Amino acid sequence: MFNNVVWQDTEISKEERAFQKNQKPCILWFTGLSGSGKTTLANALDLKLFELNCHTCVLDGDNLRYGLNSDLGFDDASRTENIRRVGELSKILVDSGIIVLTAFISPFITDREQVRKLVDDDEFIEVFMDTPLSICEKRDNKGLYKKARNGEIKNFTGISSPYEKPMNSEIHINNSFNLNENVKLILNFLKMNGNIPLKS
Amino acid sequence: MFNNVVWQDTEISKEERAFQKNQKPCILWFTGLSGSGKTTLANALDLKLFELNCHTCVLDGDNLRYGLNSDLGFDDASRTENIRRVGELSKILVDSGIIVLTAFISPFITDREQVRKLVDDDEFIEVFMDTPLSICEKRDNKGLYKKARNGEIKNFTGISSPYEKPMNSEIHINNSFNLNENVKLILNFLKMNGNIPLKS
Repeated sequence: MFNNVVWQDTEISKEERAFQKNQKPCILWFTGLSGSGKTTLANALDLKLFELNCHTCVLDGDNLRYGLNSDLGFDDASRTENIRRVGELSKILVDSGIIVLTAFISPFITDREQVRKLVDDDEFIEVFMDTPLSICEKRDNKGLYKKARNGEIKNFTGISSPYEKPMNSEIHINNSFNLNENVKLILNFLKMNGNIPLKS
Repeated sequence: MFNNVVWQDTEISKEERAFQKNQKPCILWFTGLSGSGKTTLANALDLKLFELNCHTCVLDGDNLRYGLNSDLGFDDASRTENIRRVGELSKILVDSGIIVLTAFISPFITDREQVRKLVDDDEFIEVFMDTPLSICEKRDNKGLYKKARNGEIKNFTGISSPYEKPMNSEIHINNSFNLNENVKLILNFLKMNGNIPLKS
């Protein structure tokens, strides 16, 4: 197949698109158990970045499963394909100059590392939401842990499917701080990493 | 599956993202035979839009097949899935406030109409590259028509696989004008459609 598919160079470079938006694009990859606070923190950070006039996009695991990934289930192979597509999608957004915030359980180390390899070295920023299972299960915002314990949901991460913790995530979020403090922590990281202006 | 997937509202609306970028996002969907000039026109238009400080993204059929759609072939079902994913991807970009330019043969009417349905009424702008097969085949920039005629490539649009012409495309590009004139024609459409400022 690939003999007949010819790569087309586009006219505008990634650097030009980033310069236009006054930022260095990246993927902020939030990973953690269901209920660990990925979407909440990603959205709170997104709100702050938007106020700072950054150009962002939030990709959420649940929402993607209504669209791009609506054909996939929750077995291991589907989870891997789910994350592969999100990775490719994120890369396209980064190439467009966007700071991408993704909120996916993404339980497997190899899948996350595959996404990391898609982009440049400092463009993948892994944010580990290190909320203990007991707390996630107590929150149970969507009532999913209860269903998983009852056997109504198969392959549920943390209960009947593994979660492989990151070993070297760029940002580690535990329960020491509140939401605002966590937003500030990531903003500071983005400043030091050169993604957003130091004075923002 | 969907009983356990809960839609997450994001904090920033599509309208706010569009306002930030001073444009009304849309999908410019270039469709036509291989060699009809989709990628050339999309890139020339993109260059002009970038000069006007618009926020854009170019999605090219060949490039997507190296990434997001690298698992797909060229049989009818794969072509449909190819276009479905590009549609979902384009919708995400439009929701991020981006003007998306897509260059895909997209031979089937039903597939293109599926993409149209994904976004709001005036957000899908079909650009039909109405270049006759004889001219495309004479150009044969990638040497693909020759291979298709020799039987080296199966399911080649226009030769061994059908191309269903759009009946009501928003923009119809035939061979009456040159590249610059075609760029101007689309720019004027975008101004009248409110996608970019009238004075740009």
